[in-house]
Amino acid sequence: MITGSILIGAADIATDDRFAALDPSNGQAIGPEFSAAGAEHVDRACALADAAFASFSATDLETRAAFLEEIANAILAIGDELIVRAMAESGLPRARLEGERGRTVGQLRMFATFVRTGNWLHATIDPALPDRTPMPRSDLRRRHVALGPVAVFGASNFPLAFSVAGGDTASALAAGCPVVVKGHPAHPGTGELVARAIRSAVQTCGLHEGVFSYLPGPSNELGGALVADPRIKAVGFTGSRGGGLALMRIAASRPEPIPVYAEMSSINPILLFPAALRNRAEAIATGFVGSLTMGAGQFCTNPGLLIAVAGPDLDRFSNAAAAALEGAAAGQMLTAGIHANYERGVGALQGHNAVQLIARGAVGQGCQAQAALFATDADSFLADAALGHEVFGSSSIIVRCRDLAQVADVIAGLEGQLTATLQMDGEDESAAAGLLPLLERKAGRILANGWPTGVEVCHAMVHGGPFPATSDGRTTSVGTLAIERFLRPVCYQDLPDSLLPASLKRDNPWQLSRQVDGQSGVRSAA
Amino acid sequence: MITGSILIGAADIATDDRFAALDPSNGQAIGPEFSAAGAEHVDRACALADAAFASFSATDLETRAAFLEEIANAILAIGDELIVRAMAESGLPRARLEGERGRTVGQLRMFATFVRTGNWLHATIDPALPDRTPMPRSDLRRRHVALGPVAVFGASNFPLAFSVAGGDTASALAAGCPVVVKGHPAHPGTGELVARAIRSAVQTCGLHEGVFSYLPGPSNELGGALVADPRIKAVGFTGSRGGGLALMRIAASRPEPIPVYAEMSSINPILLFPAALRNRAEAIATGFVGSLTMGAGQFCTNPGLLIAVAGPDLDRFSNAAAAALEGAAAGQMLTAGIHANYERGVGALQGHNAVQLIARGAVGQGCQAQAALFATDADSFLADAALGHEVFGSSSIIVRCRDLAQVADVIAGLEGQLTATLQMDGEDESAAAGLLPLLERKAGRILANGWPTGVEVCHAMVHGGPFPATSDGRTTSVGTLAIERFLRPVCYQDLPDSLLPASLKRDNPWQLSRQVDGQSGVRSAA
Repeated sequence: MITGSILIGAADIATDDRFAALDPSNGQAIGPEFSAAGAEHVDRACALADAAFASFSATDLETRAAFLEEIANAILAIGDELIVRAMAESGLPRARLEGERGRTVGQLRMFATFVRTGNWLHATIDPALPDRTPMPRSDLRRRHVALGPVAVFGASNFPLAFSVAGGDTASALAAGCPVVVKGHPAHPGTGELVARAIRSAVQTCGLHEGVFSYLPGPSNELGGALVADPRIKAVGFTGSRGGGLALMRIAASRPEPIPVYAEMSSINPILLFPAALRNRAEAIATGFVGSLTMGAGQFCTNPGLLIAVAGPDLDRFSNAAAAALEGAAAGQMLTAGIHANYERGVGALQGHNAVQLIARGAVGQGCQAQAALFATDADSFLADAALGHEVFGSSSIIVRCRDLAQVADVIAGLEGQLTATLQMDGEDESAAAGLLPLLERKAGRILANGWPTGVEVCHAMVHGGPFPATSDGRTTSVGTLAIERFLRPVCYQDLPDSLLPASLKRDNPWQLSRQVDGQSGVRSAA
Repeated sequence: MITGSILIGAADIATDDRFAALDPSNGQAIGPEFSAAGAEHVDRACALADAAFASFSATDLETRAAFLEEIANAILAIGDELIVRAMAESGLPRARLEGERGRTVGQLRMFATFVRTGNWLHATIDPALPDRTPMPRSDLRRRHVALGPVAVFGASNFPLAFSVAGGDTASALAAGCPVVVKGHPAHPGTGELVARAIRSAVQTCGLHEGVFSYLPGPSNELGGALVADPRIKAVGFTGSRGGGLALMRIAASRPEPIPVYAEMSSINPILLFPAALRNRAEAIATGFVGSLTMGAGQFCTNPGLLIAVAGPDLDRFSNAAAAALEGAAAGQMLTAGIHANYERGVGALQGHNAVQLIARGAVGQGCQAQAALFATDADSFLADAALGHEVFGSSSIIVRCRDLAQVADVIAGLEGQLTATLQMDGEDESAAAGLLPLLERKAGRILANGWPTGVEVCHAMVHGGPFPATSDGRTTSVGTLAIERFLRPVCYQDLPDSLLPASLKRDNPWQLSRQVDGQSGVRSAA
């Protein structure tokens, strides 16, 4: 049931400061009214999270894994109400949201499985060498522990998979960190339903109520207060560059600076290699337009940039893409604000005197996005950084280069990216190999002959990349590696076995794979 | 040979802006004069480092490991000149510096061995699942790559092991990052000798000259320019809190913010538990004074704080420590500036009306440190944060608590620490167990019945800790885990085998232990 409450631990709280959920298809409010959280709620939620930290971070592997699975079950138990509400608040279609729910539940279960392995503890033992000369070696044992309470900011474009119980929350809880979510104001009803599911799992599993709180609200001040709270030890964020930079500034200027994992801005270059264009320009164009217009282009991995050597094959691609795009229906955008930003971005490209319009999609109504494809030459692109800025939505620009050397120049001039895609055939391999070192410096994921939209949740995934794709290119927000963001190492020297955590005890009671004297395996270390 | 040059790649450069090396025992200059690097040298060194990145980061495991070993050999080949020069510039005794050279060479060799394992590549493969429903899975492969050129700031107190070829440089080179060292002005001759050894190893191994450059100089502007250079992608620093915070601010305000790994400030609390005090107050006191006064207390792990329940056993400790300290010779400090700061810190404690002087060591001459032990009560300590600030040198303060609950309060009020030490006997175990969760939140290393000075270089070591012990509590600057600071993950999706790096190719040519579908082992992944 959606009551419009703030959820702090076990308590439902209402305030006089209200905001409304809006249906983006018509701008109408959807009931009920929602209480907006303020500074006093940040204080209460963070105090509870801090109080919950000791017991929650000390839970054994099975307890923590079962909790993550219980959250998944509780989300599924909401049933169709969750899908219907998310459709109303986001304008996203049923199939997409059902798929997103599956992804959300799937990644909670993946983290449960991963938690049970204990591999994330990185149990590492260098046993004592009492007879070593000139100095004996102490017994040294290392494991990784939870950082502390984590603040999570959900994204508008994935109201389930990157929001209240999304990847940031799942990985922080998996690490043993209590979570305080700043709810996104574009989907407060969806958010509350999921928040109640997490709370019910906390209760079912007998955990401290402070393990999870939910603070909905539309103001930037709310988020700023949360990041500034001294009990918060890390931040997960998916959203705009401006928003991410603001949180980074707040975090860096705290008396105790903390890490911010902000996933912000990426235009996801697609490299169209000569043989691939020659062999299949039209097929690539069709695939490209499908990726560009899916979900009205509202993906952080949306292909916003195409780079290729100018010539007749690129013209074939361009013509085919134009034809496909002109038939593309306008897609509903998530909010009026996002739509206005999209229109502004497209308008700036359309009015730029070095940019040619290749095609627009069908005209939309209200907050629907009319897709757009532009082109420019590499010299112009290199001369104006604004042409490389993200336009969130189904807008992309073709950069025509003189030769492959200029392709490299264009890549070298790019900011950090989540992804880079190679459309290549066998004959293109040596050209692609020549550009790979440059691409590795620029992007977190490099893919061949696919499209960057669609991010697999698995061990090998990197959904990250150098600034400004993310605030911290050493990390990923998708996949099991995401747990590392919320851990830190602690070393124990010569501690009696009774004081060692289970993961490091001499008889290895959890039967973990541990690294002993540099060798990995399941073994005890006397 | 020491020429006083700036070393940029293969070039020796002299400037008119000179500074002198000083013998801290008499304040006299030791020749030759040293050229101070400036902004134009930062630019040249960073340009070369950037140019070297592609080839150096792509070196195979054996080439990179052999390079690290060659550096170790070249440092040993300097012979006694290095020890004699370091003694003159630092005032540290021969045995200490010979040990430190062994440590420096040892950690270069340890990283060579670790590089050869390839474990730091974190090769992780989730093979394609073409028949999966509803959606097939792509082939996804992840490895970790070097961040880019790294700036290293050496410390004054370890002119070898934490300086030009110290742990930061060794781990950055092991990761595949070219290094630009800002040389510490307190030991420029030592620095140049080591820098020449690294350069000779670069040449012997046929690497790009930009893999290493050395920029000596006394100015803060030099370091600031280096951290601000857009080609620098991470910073390693060991030094003062003020210096580290300044570099953090510069790094955070760059157009592209970068990580700073600054090891700054720690007072390393020692908890004296009741039974341990009852059973062996005098023996603990002797061990403590040894740790406190070793090397004039100029260690980041120096025991600057003792916490215990007040009573006759603590008085026994205090009396025994006073007796031992009064017999302690004054130790030569590294520089006149460090000595002046020490005197100022000790003077502030001595003049504090809630602090009692327990004992001073022997009076020194010139820049020698007269050791100091103070005491206060927990209420006073909790009321004045200044009493918890580091006094770099052989000064420590006993905090007398009413009971174990107040011991916990004192710990809870501490800033982040590199270490926390338990002096405990069997009967103290339950009290120690109760405090462990708190200590884990505060410190990177927890040790029992030893002393925090002496940091083993191994896999399990954590020489790090929450802010302000370091700027990034997720890391360590000592041990193999230090390499992680200079790596980031990259995912490859559906790349043809010919384009995959060797670590991820289907037939596993390097025979690495790889994680395939979540299971680790040496195997291929078709």
